Amino acid sequence: MSEPALDIVAIGNAIVDVISQEDDSFIAEHGLTKGGMQLVDAALAELLYADMGPAREISGGSAANTLAGMAMLGRQCGFIGQVHEDQLGTIFAHDIRTIGIRFETPAAADGPPTARCLIMVTPDAQRTMNTFLGASQFLPPQAVDLDMIRSARILYLEGYLWDPEQPRAAMRSAIRAAREAGREIAFTLSDAFVIERHREDFLRLIEEGQIDILFANENEIRSLAQTEDFEKAVAKIAPGLPTLVVTRGEKGAIAIRSGERHTAQAAPVDRIVDTTGAGDLFAAGFLTGHIQGKTAEQCLAIGALCAGEIISHFGARPETDLGKLVGPLLD
Amino acid sequence: MSEPALDIVAIGNAIVDVISQEDDSFIAEHGLTKGGMQLVDAALAELLYADMGPAREISGGSAANTLAGMAMLGRQCGFIGQVHEDQLGTIFAHDIRTIGIRFETPAAADGPPTARCLIMVTPDAQRTMNTFLGASQFLPPQAVDLDMIRSARILYLEGYLWDPEQPRAAMRSAIRAAREAGREIAFTLSDAFVIERHREDFLRLIEEGQIDILFANENEIRSLAQTEDFEKAVAKIAPGLPTLVVTRGEKGAIAIRSGERHTAQAAPVDRIVDTTGAGDLFAAGFLTGHIQGKTAEQCLAIGALCAGEIISHFGARPETDLGKLVGPLLD
Repeated sequence: MSEPALDIVAIGNAIVDVISQEDDSFIAEHGLTKGGMQLVDAALAELLYADMGPAREISGGSAANTLAGMAMLGRQCGFIGQVHEDQLGTIFAHDIRTIGIRFETPAAADGPPTARCLIMVTPDAQRTMNTFLGASQFLPPQAVDLDMIRSARILYLEGYLWDPEQPRAAMRSAIRAAREAGREIAFTLSDAFVIERHREDFLRLIEEGQIDILFANENEIRSLAQTEDFEKAVAKIAPGLPTLVVTRGEKGAIAIRSGERHTAQAAPVDRIVDTTGAGDLFAAGFLTGHIQGKTAEQCLAIGALCAGEIISHFGARPETDLGKLVGPLLD
Repeated sequence: MSEPALDIVAIGNAIVDVISQEDDSFIAEHGLTKGGMQLVDAALAELLYADMGPAREISGGSAANTLAGMAMLGRQCGFIGQVHEDQLGTIFAHDIRTIGIRFETPAAADGPPTARCLIMVTPDAQRTMNTFLGASQFLPPQAVDLDMIRSARILYLEGYLWDPEQPRAAMRSAIRAAREAGREIAFTLSDAFVIERHREDFLRLIEEGQIDILFANENEIRSLAQTEDFEKAVAKIAPGLPTLVVTRGEKGAIAIRSGERHTAQAAPVDRIVDTTGAGDLFAAGFLTGHIQGKTAEQCLAIGALCAGEIISHFGARPETDLGKLVGPLLD
């Protein structure tokens, strides 16, 4: 087992977010589930876009957002995901490479355009996401650089990408490669509806000991455990995992490691503008602390600070220097 | 002279802004003029983009920004400008149409891609702009809908667009059409360097009585008058115009109408984030007041409030309800 060259490599959707501000009536009239993520085809994406207000475009993608936070905190990161050879693909690639993240997955010359996520942010700062997966869902298994995966201390996987067939196969081969190289695997459950579709797969991965750190929010852990009771859900899932991290919005977050429970408060935020990316950046802070050998409490606190930054503005990529924000916690 | 169907029609660059945060050293190392606008070709645009940090994409264009503010304040607007048939073109068209602005200029199927402006925002909130004009500079005179121009109370022209040959010709024919229909013409000088190249044209337009309302900032009015002395510059230019409006950043703004000078303070802003679009939104507020028959003082005050909103966040399109902000001033 050689010394890892990268701190983390992630496989995720390569998405540009299209973010508008909408009233609650927009969510209701379009039959959307507030706070949720739904996959949309090209036709529905076009219909929704036509109804949306003026938008801003900011690179997104759950795992890519997490890496953006980690790169800003000084970690060596690699990203695997597929864009199309188009302007949104150029934007995604620029935004991830310019912060020092290795991103070498070739852009697809054929097939659908680069993925986009139409995000409506309501006055309560909640985000409702409608994802057109485009080129992202056709990430071919051969595009997954197994050498890069073996070279990274942590393999980070995004549950969202479990839906489409090709990336799922790619992630399975990545898990094997990481395990053979003795690397850690972190997994984020992403969304309750993704879990509805893939619960058996996710539970089997846990059972087989393939996941070292699992990230979830309250809805997701309840969905995975198939119980409405949060504590019962945690009690059911945690024992199968070296580390379970559950984010709880304004109630903070918990981590359960070797049967011990650790907690953190949510970081104080002047004004919550857009909650998109809160979980992604929480994971960025937690994993950075983990890599730097911090305690579970410290990892949670760093995660909470990063999540606090991201919800203070539109978009899921950090705007302020996370290193300064986190400061002594990472010294 | 028929009753105008639109309040305003503008001819301007159809641009998507690409906005990153950079240190002063970036401006120095790339030999840029802080606070200025330079035109860049495709190759230089690519070089600069490669060096920029992560960016957000937000529709821009000086006159288009002004219309976005006016549409939000309830005015009927039409925009003329050319994008290419590409993703950035789709974004620009969406963002302008979804707020109710008539935008019917066909997207170019051939030629360069949609224009973009690479904007570096430094910690002092100053913006340094590098514009790749792309499809915008090839706006063909026949794309200018003269009927729409005749149908609007005000024709609004952007000095930036005086540079490229085809749009300049288009604007000249628009001026003729507006004048024949008895409409007002408002003109924004846009940038000191544009004035360097076209001072004679601009002075001749004023001399011929083709401009009813001229918008400038301090640098621009000094450049137009070819004097370093602000007061001398105003004294030289104002007499040729029914209304001269000069924005002065934190010092507020002045309007000179029929020899009388009116002033407004800058609106108080909690934190100035990005000054891009300050002049554009000032014009939006001023022109809206003008259309609604407000006094010069009131027009200035409305302009100052709109400018205050736009500099409180990244991007040159309003994020908060300008109607609520301006409130009783427009009742």
